[in-house]
Amino acid sequence: MWFKRWLLGRPIATAQAAHERLTKTVALAIFSSDALSSVAYATEEILLVLVLAGTSAFHYSIGISLAIVGLLAILTASYRQTIFVYPAGGGAYVVSKSNLGELPGLVAGASLLIDYILTVAVSVAAGVAAITSAVPELHDHRVALGLLAIAIMIWANLRGVREAGKLFAVPTYMFIGTLGLVLVMGLGKALLGVKVDLPAVPAVPVVEGVTLFLLLRAFSSGCTALTGVEAISNGIPAFKEPASQNAAATMTWMAAILGTLFLGLTALANFYGVVPREDETLISQISRAALGGGLLYYFMQLATMKILILAANTSFNGFPRLASMLAQDGFLPRQMRHLGDRLVFSNGIVLLGGFAALLLVIFRGDTHALIPLYAIGVFLSFTLSQAGMVQHWRDQKGSGWRKKLAINLSGAIATGVATLVLAVTKFTHGAWVVVVLLPLFIVMFRRIRWHYKMVDWQLSLDMYERPPTPPRSTFVMPIGEVNRATVLALDYVRQRGREIRAVHVDVDANETARIKEEWAKWGVGIPLETLPSPYRSFLPPLLDYIEKVREETPGGWVTVVLPEVLPARWWETLLHNQRALLIKAAVLFKFRVIITDVPYHLGPY
Amino acid sequence: MWFKRWLLGRPIATAQAAHERLTKTVALAIFSSDALSSVAYATEEILLVLVLAGTSAFHYSIGISLAIVGLLAILTASYRQTIFVYPAGGGAYVVSKSNLGELPGLVAGASLLIDYILTVAVSVAAGVAAITSAVPELHDHRVALGLLAIAIMIWANLRGVREAGKLFAVPTYMFIGTLGLVLVMGLGKALLGVKVDLPAVPAVPVVEGVTLFLLLRAFSSGCTALTGVEAISNGIPAFKEPASQNAAATMTWMAAILGTLFLGLTALANFYGVVPREDETLISQISRAALGGGLLYYFMQLATMKILILAANTSFNGFPRLASMLAQDGFLPRQMRHLGDRLVFSNGIVLLGGFAALLLVIFRGDTHALIPLYAIGVFLSFTLSQAGMVQHWRDQKGSGWRKKLAINLSGAIATGVATLVLAVTKFTHGAWVVVVLLPLFIVMFRRIRWHYKMVDWQLSLDMYERPPTPPRSTFVMPIGEVNRATVLALDYVRQRGREIRAVHVDVDANETARIKEEWAKWGVGIPLETLPSPYRSFLPPLLDYIEKVREETPGGWVTVVLPEVLPARWWETLLHNQRALLIKAAVLFKFRVIITDVPYHLGPY
Repeated sequence: MWFKRWLLGRPIATAQAAHERLTKTVALAIFSSDALSSVAYATEEILLVLVLAGTSAFHYSIGISLAIVGLLAILTASYRQTIFVYPAGGGAYVVSKSNLGELPGLVAGASLLIDYILTVAVSVAAGVAAITSAVPELHDHRVALGLLAIAIMIWANLRGVREAGKLFAVPTYMFIGTLGLVLVMGLGKALLGVKVDLPAVPAVPVVEGVTLFLLLRAFSSGCTALTGVEAISNGIPAFKEPASQNAAATMTWMAAILGTLFLGLTALANFYGVVPREDETLISQISRAALGGGLLYYFMQLATMKILILAANTSFNGFPRLASMLAQDGFLPRQMRHLGDRLVFSNGIVLLGGFAALLLVIFRGDTHALIPLYAIGVFLSFTLSQAGMVQHWRDQKGSGWRKKLAINLSGAIATGVATLVLAVTKFTHGAWVVVVLLPLFIVMFRRIRWHYKMVDWQLSLDMYERPPTPPRSTFVMPIGEVNRATVLALDYVRQRGREIRAVHVDVDANETARIKEEWAKWGVGIPLETLPSPYRSFLPPLLDYIEKVREETPGGWVTVVLPEVLPARWWETLLHNQRALLIKAAVLFKFRVIITDVPYHLGPY
Repeated sequence: MWFKRWLLGRPIATAQAAHERLTKTVALAIFSSDALSSVAYATEEILLVLVLAGTSAFHYSIGISLAIVGLLAILTASYRQTIFVYPAGGGAYVVSKSNLGELPGLVAGASLLIDYILTVAVSVAAGVAAITSAVPELHDHRVALGLLAIAIMIWANLRGVREAGKLFAVPTYMFIGTLGLVLVMGLGKALLGVKVDLPAVPAVPVVEGVTLFLLLRAFSSGCTALTGVEAISNGIPAFKEPASQNAAATMTWMAAILGTLFLGLTALANFYGVVPREDETLISQISRAALGGGLLYYFMQLATMKILILAANTSFNGFPRLASMLAQDGFLPRQMRHLGDRLVFSNGIVLLGGFAALLLVIFRGDTHALIPLYAIGVFLSFTLSQAGMVQHWRDQKGSGWRKKLAINLSGAIATGVATLVLAVTKFTHGAWVVVVLLPLFIVMFRRIRWHYKMVDWQLSLDMYERPPTPPRSTFVMPIGEVNRATVLALDYVRQRGREIRAVHVDVDANETARIKEEWAKWGVGIPLETLPSPYRSFLPPLLDYIEKVREETPGGWVTVVLPEVLPARWWETLLHNQRALLIKAAVLFKFRVIITDVPYHLGPY
């Protein structure tokens, strides 16, 4: 207990919840780390596709980036409207479910859950890659480093929102500042014609020509830059009042910063003619060239690593909130519903960390293998969310609804087209995994809710006819030894008018004689029945006896009383209670049989 | 249950035990497979040491083998006497403990337990090597093959003694017969000067000269031939009456066969000038030469594999019996004491198989790495056992005791010297592991017995003053939902004059209001107390309340009544009872607090 307090901090009262709200500055750091961090790999992913048509195709990256930034602008306008309509949090699940119906809601919910897990895995993998670009010796330990990072994140998030905010505000602004410096210095050097130090460009074989499909694939890859922009619309209740206004303003700022950094980096990559390499990330190459290699370069790599690791944090805010909403609607286990005593959804945090760690181990910490799985879920939920908003305006109307509908409709169409492009161009590269997982999640959601409904129905008191008198219980006490634990259990259970049956399974004749003698002294007149055991096992005769007693009293219960010796040290439990465990396991699924353990606590010696 | 029956056979009644006794023919097969099988590697182990002084030193192997056979003769004479003195089974543990005292007994017991585990691991590894000598393609799968063999042995032994005997009699005699044929044909060919087909002798570098230490090391390595000869003296109760006479006769036969095969093989290796090779066992080379390679050779390899795998079976008889004896004396956990329902010690069998499998995996199935760990424990227990017999004759005297004492004394001295030689020459090759493990085992034995003694003392009724009236219990019922499960639990527990406290932890005001309303309908007039929970967790307020109730009734008990919903499918339990689990874990180590689970079994839907 004290360990939990020390690790996670003192509990926070429900009444304190309002004081835990975030300022815009802190909220920008927390909710935009995911979106901003994707700058670290989006340009590289575009060039990795274009390189198939040779380095001469790289100039297409400018146009592709502009298209992506255009998409970002539409999306931002679209989501700003959602923020005002759903001030309690307008995630894709809520918006789709309330406007389009349950199934689209569940599709959005499942996409988002998958996406949150992948965000953690991808961001951690890319963050570790930033470090191993600067310190190649650590390359072999990247899975271990990633797992360490996930463990730290679980810890930070279990401590709670505000403190997590403090921890994360600094690195986000550090990244924005340092990458800004890289862009200013880099573009300055390029414009002034200062020669920069770049690794020799390797000979790149031309594999295919510049086709529309290739350009669409490059566009799909670049779309990872937009993952995470929805985070703010899910987290409105975490903002200080007026929450919606603050959230919308933060959203605009985030989009502006994201667009600038992404376009700047793509432009600089083109100016310098940088080619993606296996052993060093693109952003590392550009930073090294622009900053000239020294201490500032290492600072930049550190900032990249930090924002990527912290980007995963967006998911640690989003996943547990979404899981809690799904659980409240009965689609996930009930224990995910509740806020923990630090005002966070503890179960969801641990679950998310666990899944992400699993993915990291399976894919051995490789960013490029994880990214194709990643964007399709995000864009599917974008589309459903915008389509839900379109339906909202059609239903609700209100002042200027036609203009608002047009904005959301353009968002829905743009993201819908992007989703199709992603699904088609990335299908064989891993997007199929998401296509398989989605229906499985939805089946699971529905199965869980069906279960809860059926259980509620079976447990309902609506048609229940209570028996006029409480049922009688016969108490069966298996006697293996006559000692203080046995006597204590007997004294706990014996009462005037109660039927107690003491039984001993006769495995060894000498022992049985001894037990009988001792029982005569301590058994307060209750007779000790002996159960023969021709096969030396104590369990079958006992179970037969319990069955017999149960049949003798129709409608009645059998309570099995077990004295349980609890040693002072944990390893000593291996030396006790094996029989009690076997008995408990054997009667667990029998009707009208109850186990009562009477503990006897041993002292240390 | 039916699966267990089908796998392991029907239970066998205690009264049937006598019918499970073994004839001499079957007993020879069961108890001597360990000793005989070591012929498959003992000669090779001797040559592997001598080869350090070049192939010219090989002729020393004849003398060394004769010394080992001399040791075998002394040991057999010595053990025959033990068999008559301890007809109930004269293992080293019993003989040392009853004559020399507890500590020597425990040393012998620990040596034997370690040795049994190593026997299984070594025999299985060598058996698999016999197969991979003939079929080199399987070399990469040797660990998997070994684990499969261990699994089959666990299965066979859980089925019981007699049937296991049937399974093992054929291969032992097959091995004796086929190896006999190899020796007759091989020596015949050698004497008649028939040219045999042997692989070219590789150039052997001379690493050291022929020193006394080298010869002693070779002797130590060859001593593995004697491992397992004590098996019969442990298993006398398994023989048909007159058990001692039958056992002694079987022992003599076994020693004669073992000596003949071992000497014959060493002689043949010298005649042919065979050199140990990495890719093929010595016995495989000799068999191939003597039998001429064809089907008969493969039959020989199969027989070698089978007897080696089955040699491990000796341990499956010995280990559980010894563990049961140690458990009866309080040195091992009590659950190892009992015969299972097929008249075998099931716990010991599974434990032995598990440890051996672990060793096999750790040493990656390599025979030569395991053998140095192996013989020292055996010889230590030989020495202690013979020394115990010497003490026995000094104490008991009896007719002709001086002669009998002399025989056992010579046995004790011979094996004692061999133990010292083994410990010194093999110390750095792995014998140190045993030297480290032995004290650890003995500390564990004593720690376990001390624990049981202290527990018996704490539980003893000798000075116990029973309270004049049974203690009162207050019943605390945490109410999370009001449904059939809750009402059933309430009806189970309510009785006239009983104090029942229904409590609800107030996490959510709306829910609390609903629960109160429903409880008013179903709570049979018991008031529902509401426990405030400022931190939203239900556990701390509940624990505080339980604590308060316990303090209100000094000397009394608190019984926490938990309705438990049991779903029809196992995975559905993940969706229920999380709170009940948390409550149970939290109060487990509280004094005078008892949990009563009232199960509600859901039907399938």
